[in-house]
Amino acid sequence: VTGALMAAEMAEQPDVLARLLARAPADAQRVARVLPSPLAGTVFLARGSSDNAAVFGRYLAELSAGRPAGLAAPSLCTRYHADVDWRGYLLIALSQSGATPEVVSTCASARSAGAAVIGITNEPDSPLAAVVDLLLTTDAGPERAVPATKTVTGQFALLATVAGALGARAGRGRPPAIGDAAAGAALAALPGAVATALADPGPARELARRWRDIDRLVVAGRGLGYAAALETALKVAETTGILATGMSTADLHHGPIAAVYGGARVLLIDGTGPADADLAGLRELLTSRGGQTATLPVHPGLAEAAQVITAVVRGQQLAFELASLRGTDPDAPAHLTKVTATT
Amino acid sequence: VTGALMAAEMAEQPDVLARLLARAPADAQRVARVLPSPLAGTVFLARGSSDNAAVFGRYLAELSAGRPAGLAAPSLCTRYHADVDWRGYLLIALSQSGATPEVVSTCASARSAGAAVIGITNEPDSPLAAVVDLLLTTDAGPERAVPATKTVTGQFALLATVAGALGARAGRGRPPAIGDAAAGAALAALPGAVATALADPGPARELARRWRDIDRLVVAGRGLGYAAALETALKVAETTGILATGMSTADLHHGPIAAVYGGARVLLIDGTGPADADLAGLRELLTSRGGQTATLPVHPGLAEAAQVITAVVRGQQLAFELASLRGTDPDAPAHLTKVTATT
Repeated sequence: VTGALMAAEMAEQPDVLARLLARAPADAQRVARVLPSPLAGTVFLARGSSDNAAVFGRYLAELSAGRPAGLAAPSLCTRYHADVDWRGYLLIALSQSGATPEVVSTCASARSAGAAVIGITNEPDSPLAAVVDLLLTTDAGPERAVPATKTVTGQFALLATVAGALGARAGRGRPPAIGDAAAGAALAALPGAVATALADPGPARELARRWRDIDRLVVAGRGLGYAAALETALKVAETTGILATGMSTADLHHGPIAAVYGGARVLLIDGTGPADADLAGLRELLTSRGGQTATLPVHPGLAEAAQVITAVVRGQQLAFELASLRGTDPDAPAHLTKVTATT
Repeated sequence: VTGALMAAEMAEQPDVLARLLARAPADAQRVARVLPSPLAGTVFLARGSSDNAAVFGRYLAELSAGRPAGLAAPSLCTRYHADVDWRGYLLIALSQSGATPEVVSTCASARSAGAAVIGITNEPDSPLAAVVDLLLTTDAGPERAVPATKTVTGQFALLATVAGALGARAGRGRPPAIGDAAAGAALAALPGAVATALADPGPARELARRWRDIDRLVVAGRGLGYAAALETALKVAETTGILATGMSTADLHHGPIAAVYGGARVLLIDGTGPADADLAGLRELLTSRGGQTATLPVHPGLAEAAQVITAVVRGQQLAFELASLRGTDPDAPAHLTKVTATT
């Protein structure tokens, strides 16, 4: 059956998340042992859907650690052979396969130049394991559909754990985005919320029917929700061939919004947190000018990080339903492979 | 005449660049006086086309300074009120107008938390001036067309100057990307190369004819050329309403390439530097699978930074020609304004 793998792997997410949350206090202790002191900054290194998790981590890390965070540009290592002093930095590398060559080689280089390196992967025996100070596994079981689902939400959950450890080290506790309560507690509702979303495919199905024939899509979010926007756009692109692009609402206003006036549809990732007013403002502006927007249901009452992870799942549903309606097989999109060996 | 402002402002670029290169040694001295020591890292802060210049600066700064560089997430300051310790950091804020509220407020906040702040703007009397340690002006004269052109290439040139100062401070000289010669010298050919490109609108015109009716476009680059890809995509989007997205070739391979197999055209920014093989590989892959790619002429023999700035000008030409053929006015795209006041 077309999409059977992706559907099965999506359905495993509540269990994967519950396992990771149960492990969170122990993971946080392991993270604490490798953190640089003092911390100069945090850098995330990844590609594809792992890079969307990295965006989520980047916001959480800066909020929690109180030092600037950012994203690595792997070509600086692999193409420019940049000589960078990484002392004082925490480098967090994400790769589902643990085998993306440019991720592994950049880790090795940064570590030998002084970085403390945490790897996050679903494959504990992968090459990534050899070039990190600490490996955290998403422990999601084999993932065989090309579009990553359970490994991605697993990465998001682990990044909340890492952020908790960064906040504790900085003596500032957990930011509201991941809940102020004791480690793990504020995200405790996450597996249940994801199960609720998975049991409710109707809204994504209905939106997919409405948008069945589109060939371009903007997914807009802001703050932590920006990561869900990027991930939803990637899932839609890879499963359907639609040109889908995730964008910050602020970036959208600085020019690209012309493409929306030109007819591109916009999915708004809202209801997640402090940037909700930006999403509401964008909706109002676009609606007044004939732009076509939509949203998917949110799950109020959760910590923001949990809202965003649930929004990622809603995005998976949209990608799945669009692919099904358009007659493409989300499990194995034409020309794509599960492991992408960029250098 | 439709597009008259944009055309006139594009034509001023050789003069603007020549002025900035003449000023480069003095600017580099002023930069040297505000650099933190030791340097923890460099962060760039911008939106829109200034943010594309920031990507260019981000690569150059890490290469030159030998410490990690990255891009700010303004919502962390303006929406999350993150409490961040910026000591040891150089923050470089770019805004043509100097009036983007979130850029100004993030500068003020980071500076009071210990950052050294350099502002790059075309408006020396703007609010940005009040919240920086050093203001560098693109000195490009009034820019009235909505799509920024001469102020953007001016920002790129100033960022090469800043990178030169970072390299000198680090005792490592100038990276090959901006030329190993004495300050300014390696970019000396830039104004002439831009003038040559401007005198040769044929290739962009021909490509615009071929792609006149597209509604989606990927612009792919890598390394420094990634910044030109982002900027070309933005120019095309804002002048035409095409959904155009700039992407690293490596990111493209991790899923979004499905949209190219789905029919999106790809403009390759190549011939600029160490990542050329990645562009060649992408072209070969896509060609073998029926993907439609194109390139615009490059200017061999220049330092990479100059190649990339010239590629930005080629992208402006493509946007201009596409808009002209499609009957939109690039000077004043519907619903867009020159200053975008995101908070």
